[in-house]
Amino acid sequence: MRTVGFACTSAEDTLNPFHFDRRNPRPNDVVMEILYCGVCHSDLHWVRNDWGHTPYPAIPGHEIIGRVIETGPDVTRHKIGDIVAVGCMVDSCQNCDQCRKGEEQYCREGQKHPIGMNGVYGGIDVVDNTPNMGGYSKHLVVRQEFALKVPKGLDISKAAPLLCAGITTWSPLRTCQVGPGTRVAVIGLGGLGQMAVKLAVALGAEVTVISRSDKKQQDALAIGADKLLASSNDKAMQAAVNSFDLIIDTIPVEHDITPYLPLLDVDGTFSMVGQIGPLPTTTTLPLVYGRRRITGSLVGGIRETQELLNFCARKNILPDTKTVAMQDINDVFKELEKGDTHYRFVIDMSTLKAD
Amino acid sequence: MRTVGFACTSAEDTLNPFHFDRRNPRPNDVVMEILYCGVCHSDLHWVRNDWGHTPYPAIPGHEIIGRVIETGPDVTRHKIGDIVAVGCMVDSCQNCDQCRKGEEQYCREGQKHPIGMNGVYGGIDVVDNTPNMGGYSKHLVVRQEFALKVPKGLDISKAAPLLCAGITTWSPLRTCQVGPGTRVAVIGLGGLGQMAVKLAVALGAEVTVISRSDKKQQDALAIGADKLLASSNDKAMQAAVNSFDLIIDTIPVEHDITPYLPLLDVDGTFSMVGQIGPLPTTTTLPLVYGRRRITGSLVGGIRETQELLNFCARKNILPDTKTVAMQDINDVFKELEKGDTHYRFVIDMSTLKAD
Repeated sequence: MRTVGFACTSAEDTLNPFHFDRRNPRPNDVVMEILYCGVCHSDLHWVRNDWGHTPYPAIPGHEIIGRVIETGPDVTRHKIGDIVAVGCMVDSCQNCDQCRKGEEQYCREGQKHPIGMNGVYGGIDVVDNTPNMGGYSKHLVVRQEFALKVPKGLDISKAAPLLCAGITTWSPLRTCQVGPGTRVAVIGLGGLGQMAVKLAVALGAEVTVISRSDKKQQDALAIGADKLLASSNDKAMQAAVNSFDLIIDTIPVEHDITPYLPLLDVDGTFSMVGQIGPLPTTTTLPLVYGRRRITGSLVGGIRETQELLNFCARKNILPDTKTVAMQDINDVFKELEKGDTHYRFVIDMSTLKAD
Repeated sequence: MRTVGFACTSAEDTLNPFHFDRRNPRPNDVVMEILYCGVCHSDLHWVRNDWGHTPYPAIPGHEIIGRVIETGPDVTRHKIGDIVAVGCMVDSCQNCDQCRKGEEQYCREGQKHPIGMNGVYGGIDVVDNTPNMGGYSKHLVVRQEFALKVPKGLDISKAAPLLCAGITTWSPLRTCQVGPGTRVAVIGLGGLGQMAVKLAVALGAEVTVISRSDKKQQDALAIGADKLLASSNDKAMQAAVNSFDLIIDTIPVEHDITPYLPLLDVDGTFSMVGQIGPLPTTTTLPLVYGRRRITGSLVGGIRETQELLNFCARKNILPDTKTVAMQDINDVFKELEKGDTHYRFVIDMSTLKAD
């Protein structure tokens, strides 16, 4: 089917309108009219070819909310008119141990893709071998298993970032069984950081934001954090040794984690969700003297993502967002590069005209 | 009480006979005549001041087996004539959350010591504030809680290394709930490595030794490993991606762990027990794309150490040892520095004359 999106034709290019074909729906597919798409820092990495394997033209976007406008004959989970959501993954083998556990993000087949899963962009369609095209577009065709149900009561104009920023922080919170009394710290207060704070607070945890300075104290408290710890304050850092069960590190660029590790208590977990690449030299001391763990996490499975959407609807949790028009995306990318926005940009896809 | 040991008076010194006073037994203390003491690579680090905080004269030794020859009036756990063992720790607060969990190695008070616990050497006596003196000596005075019962049937001439090499590898095996079917790899086949292999095999795991070349294949199979993986064999390393649940890294010097991380399966654990110091630059990729964990481990608690001794007695597991005389210790240290011994040296303390 013919549709339109915003694509880059090279790493140096801006994003511009681009007409292209989505596959015609297969029996197990739903066709969505995309209503909203969040803007993730990964989108910027992708169009700039920062990971070295972007095929052009490239359409980013992996926080997608839309309405079902057509269903294949085998579709049982969704019907025309349903509001559904698609995140970073659009396919998996559905048959390996990871898929059967509901951990499709670690699918054995998906791990053969450069981004570790069959991505809505970055992935390759398993039937026709064409590169997948992301959500900065008017329509999406996706197999029914990867379309999530958007619960009534969730503001669809704001919910899109739950599909990446939300699940990326929800998954380590759930893996570490965060609940009342768990001491969670969140490093960074961007798109991922704010979601980590809100979700951890809603799970009943004691939540600290770790930021370079005190500057974001009000922002941190406003979204429910108990306190802010300034990493530039040596005395405060020293006083915080051994005081967290889980630290979620959302910093999206290469950085030294050494100062943060001693802040974990014995058996504490340092989960890196923001940066894929070099982990600079650190020391084994806090690992050996306290059995602390350094780990990472990749989005979350479909079941866990549905759990997140339901949780957010029930608890009325939404990311702080700023709605933008499709044609403003190049300015949005410039703002994103500057960093320091605690809200997440969401594209109102009605601003993208089909012609 | 007056006794004798082998001490260094500086980082450049050899070990030589040294007469000194042990404390007179307190009501809760037992006095041991030391029968055997294992030689650990840490002993060498300690006398050479490699960690920068060795007070001289320094007596190393933390794998100690002996006979109770005197008990304080409050001692209920041991009686004169009992064969008991002492490992790396000789004290802890007995009152913090970690001590109450039986994890005295992570005692809140112990963490104030440079070696993270109140060590048989490296620690400081909490009553008289003198530096503790290790097991290369004729006698030891220790509070009863830190003297372990040596089960009948355990060959005491060989069992000493269980107190450090044994528990250091037993603890991560137990923390990771290793059992039948668990896929365990052990990097290095020195004192720690051989114990890790024997214990993992006895727990029913599938065990692979990872070594630089195939040279140690026979040694690995002889102690029960299922196979050896040569890290210099790129093809074999590639074939082993995603194939282990737990890797125990016993390499005692700074090294790059990057090649080993992808060998872990999703949710796998890389446990570093051999090296305390810099962790060279690696990458977050295998952490993010597979939720793998890098962690460390420090010996084990008293309860866990007793469990190990009982397990080894029941399963007839003993380290490969070479018995040496106290006066040969300086030659033993030279051999240790060369590395590459798969057995553990044990000092027969009857060779140390009291005069």
